[in-house]
Amino acid sequence: MSESPIDGLIRALAGLPGLGPRSARRIALTLLTGRDGKMDRLTAALKHAVEAVKMCSVCGNLDAVDPCRLCRDEKRCTGVLCIVAGVAGLWAIERTGAFRGRYHVLNGVLSALDGKGPDDLRIATLPSRIRDEGIKEVIMALSATVDGQATAHYLTDRLRNFTDLRIARLAHGVPVGGEIDHLDDGTLATALKSRAVL
Amino acid sequence: MSESPIDGLIRALAGLPGLGPRSARRIALTLLTGRDGKMDRLTAALKHAVEAVKMCSVCGNLDAVDPCRLCRDEKRCTGVLCIVAGVAGLWAIERTGAFRGRYHVLNGVLSALDGKGPDDLRIATLPSRIRDEGIKEVIMALSATVDGQATAHYLTDRLRNFTDLRIARLAHGVPVGGEIDHLDDGTLATALKSRAVL
Repeated sequence: MSESPIDGLIRALAGLPGLGPRSARRIALTLLTGRDGKMDRLTAALKHAVEAVKMCSVCGNLDAVDPCRLCRDEKRCTGVLCIVAGVAGLWAIERTGAFRGRYHVLNGVLSALDGKGPDDLRIATLPSRIRDEGIKEVIMALSATVDGQATAHYLTDRLRNFTDLRIARLAHGVPVGGEIDHLDDGTLATALKSRAVL
Repeated sequence: MSESPIDGLIRALAGLPGLGPRSARRIALTLLTGRDGKMDRLTAALKHAVEAVKMCSVCGNLDAVDPCRLCRDEKRCTGVLCIVAGVAGLWAIERTGAFRGRYHVLNGVLSALDGKGPDDLRIATLPSRIRDEGIKEVIMALSATVDGQATAHYLTDRLRNFTDLRIARLAHGVPVGGEIDHLDDGTLATALKSRAVL
């Protein structure tokens, strides 16, 4: 390895999402010069995470136990299944505290551009989960992007055999705290169309 | 350890400069789910950096060799010494390519607030370096903050015995590309006073 270890560390950090060369340099310096143990804590946390974290074989969440804590939690209702593209979406919904059902992580969305087809997603176990867990409602918590919506349509199609299954999607509209004059036309039009009567 | 390994990783990442809980979560997810080896590269780079990088005993720079490559480089002129507060400043000046002399890293600035006195900085070896390396000019490349300027004053005082030594500081003025109407009054006043005749 002819690259200096400092440059190697900066390059590894700069490859992380949201970090550029500038912030990577700053972090590398903090790690290399810090006397408060940041470096030790980070290496230990990385090592521990690599060894302990695995994908839940039921829902696809990441956790130290398999099935994950959400799938083991008997207080969560089992009739509702929330389909998310990734663990980031699952975490975001969990933070709201507004959903107490089960999750199913697809590990991506269908994407012609990225060459992602149905076989690349965690779709195969979905029908058996709906049947075996007695799911009454599926919520498609997918992004309002072309790929996200195409995935939702595809899944809706795949689940058509379940005649009693209610399939829902997240509501579109004005973000809470959002200003109308800064909103894009599509969202505003949808918010108008789905207006709620007071 | 009762904390989950994922939360531990997020907390370790969120402690790094410029990263908050949101970006730390995003990075942790990328590391845990990524199949492109980002996690392996980062752990290897951290391990390599921890083992290999040390502080240069001459100038205080960080490098895999001691003395560092800048101190070994015989093409650099030895008569000019640039004093910086930290390695970040040294790297910033190196990136400009405008300085070809030697460096001296203080590892901080004097700060009453942070309880940093002269003994906490790499000042002790400075007089002997100036004498032994035949330094003719010292450039104080310290921040234009109260602490930075106090440190520059203190060092100027300490080096008063070297009668033939020229002591300089970085020029103050309008940043290149900076707009005058967005500049603070102090900088603008200084830029006016130190105006260059065309």
